[in-house]
Amino acid sequence: MTPLLVTMGDAAGIGPEIIARAHAAGALADAVVVGDVGVLRREPGTIVARITAPQDLPQVPPGALPVIEPPGLPHGLAGAPRGTVDARNGAAAARCIEHAVALLREGRGAAIVTAPVHKEALAAAGVPYPGHTEMLQALAAPPGAEPPPVRMMLANRELRVVLVTIHVALRRAIELVTFDAVRDTIRIAHRAAQRWGLAAPRIAVAGLNPHAGEGGLFGREELDVIGPAIAAAQAEGIDTSGPHPPDTVFMRARRGAFDLVVAMTHDHGLIPVKYLGVEDGVNVTLGLPFVRTSPDHGTAFDIAGQGAADPASLLAALAMARQLAARPAA
Amino acid sequence: MTPLLVTMGDAAGIGPEIIARAHAAGALADAVVVGDVGVLRREPGTIVARITAPQDLPQVPPGALPVIEPPGLPHGLAGAPRGTVDARNGAAAARCIEHAVALLREGRGAAIVTAPVHKEALAAAGVPYPGHTEMLQALAAPPGAEPPPVRMMLANRELRVVLVTIHVALRRAIELVTFDAVRDTIRIAHRAAQRWGLAAPRIAVAGLNPHAGEGGLFGREELDVIGPAIAAAQAEGIDTSGPHPPDTVFMRARRGAFDLVVAMTHDHGLIPVKYLGVEDGVNVTLGLPFVRTSPDHGTAFDIAGQGAADPASLLAALAMARQLAARPAA
Repeated sequence: MTPLLVTMGDAAGIGPEIIARAHAAGALADAVVVGDVGVLRREPGTIVARITAPQDLPQVPPGALPVIEPPGLPHGLAGAPRGTVDARNGAAAARCIEHAVALLREGRGAAIVTAPVHKEALAAAGVPYPGHTEMLQALAAPPGAEPPPVRMMLANRELRVVLVTIHVALRRAIELVTFDAVRDTIRIAHRAAQRWGLAAPRIAVAGLNPHAGEGGLFGREELDVIGPAIAAAQAEGIDTSGPHPPDTVFMRARRGAFDLVVAMTHDHGLIPVKYLGVEDGVNVTLGLPFVRTSPDHGTAFDIAGQGAADPASLLAALAMARQLAARPAA
Repeated sequence: MTPLLVTMGDAAGIGPEIIARAHAAGALADAVVVGDVGVLRREPGTIVARITAPQDLPQVPPGALPVIEPPGLPHGLAGAPRGTVDARNGAAAARCIEHAVALLREGRGAAIVTAPVHKEALAAAGVPYPGHTEMLQALAAPPGAEPPPVRMMLANRELRVVLVTIHVALRRAIELVTFDAVRDTIRIAHRAAQRWGLAAPRIAVAGLNPHAGEGGLFGREELDVIGPAIAAAQAEGIDTSGPHPPDTVFMRARRGAFDLVVAMTHDHGLIPVKYLGVEDGVNVTLGLPFVRTSPDHGTAFDIAGQGAADPASLLAALAMARQLAARPAA
């Protein structure tokens, strides 16, 4: 069995803690942690089995948490305080991600599930990427090649939403809704869903304006940009439809009318994913040559090490990675 | 008992049909229809009792649907075809609304529940209002006075959302998010909720941008406009908070953290209200001197008269009117 690879994240955040809790809950039976052995041993009640590669898994004693420690980790991480920015933790988090991607590229991991990193700690360590997404993009590209275009998907048990724009002002997001951005998002979503085993994923595209523009009365982006991008994707053989009115398309997807919804803005997409509860929300990066999921929260420095962190979103991320990496016959 | 007043809407639409179904379901026991007797008699199995005013209700035989027919309705409406625009239906729908408001103003109705009208039929009849909202605003104002500012609320059993902007392009909606518009919306929501019996309604205000602007990084409307409007409302003694990140505030309200959410755009507000199903969605007009609810759908000319119309949203509108008009002790 090829295991899931779980990266430790920032050692001062809640990553090691929620990993230990997920392990205690039996949710890491098909997973290996890529992290610092000392940091994980620090978690109460956690017995760590250090292994050097996924193929050593059969030798791990029952109840122990298998950890691969990448070469070159900084020393003494377990002695550093929680809840503070530390360059050593930033460097260690980055090393774990690099090592996990190397294992994935060798076919020795089924998917990567990333515990939260801290942007400032990465910067303090001189890591040239502000976060996971950019780093994974760079690691996924062959040397010298352009990183592949990626999109953020937020998903829970009943809804999968892929975003055309994310962390920009709404005014700016409207400008970023271009023919290329919409068509590329549909293509990326389509390819990703095919990799998960959906032969012909049904992709609904939400409009930008109320009532999807009401024929131009409430905005022209649907007529001038989104509609043509959908038509272009359809011409490539993709099963996609829209632009649908934003206020009802998510409800319809939840009821099974579509496999994925492409949303133009951060909040059109995230409001419905989070409406029934943030605990189940999982962040998935589409466009990478491997499955990557992560819990939909940050390092939570304010509560790290207090035993108060909730592993629910990590558990959901593990379940989603398992589901998406299974690749049932199409 | 002061009854709910249910206006018939456009006779060629599904209004009369869903009213008859609601009656058959026993949901009009505390209501009187303001409409055309012939049109309502046309509904299969419906026995109509014509009355002249709400105080005649005790004389209505069991099982009969009480109908007040306003003076001056066009003749022969029941003979007109369904599913088509007809000036006579537009004129009749407007007369019913006028008459119902007159009864409300005399204290002879507890609230008004309006079945759908058709904009083109109203226009064909020379009615100087494009729809219910504008007509009710005008009828609510004393002669010669400015109509009161109103806002649309969409609500279901678990969420009440009041909208700052509605049927405009998203680009335009951003321009319409002004200090006055936001502060007035908070005020209108506050006063309305107090009328329903909430002494100190907890009003959450959603931001416009992702993460409510992330301190200016993703847009400045929260800092420059929405925040100051919230502060002004707080200074008036209103229990209001925000700007909250749009992607989690509705989830929090659903769990009971707030009584109402003020949303900046049509779809930020309607996506969560409709996510669990459109059947329960009720449209409420806030700012009028009486409670007004309506089902969240139109005349549905395409299915009118076929027995296929679903009364669920009308039933929800009746229940909401009942709840909001009850005015329990604050």
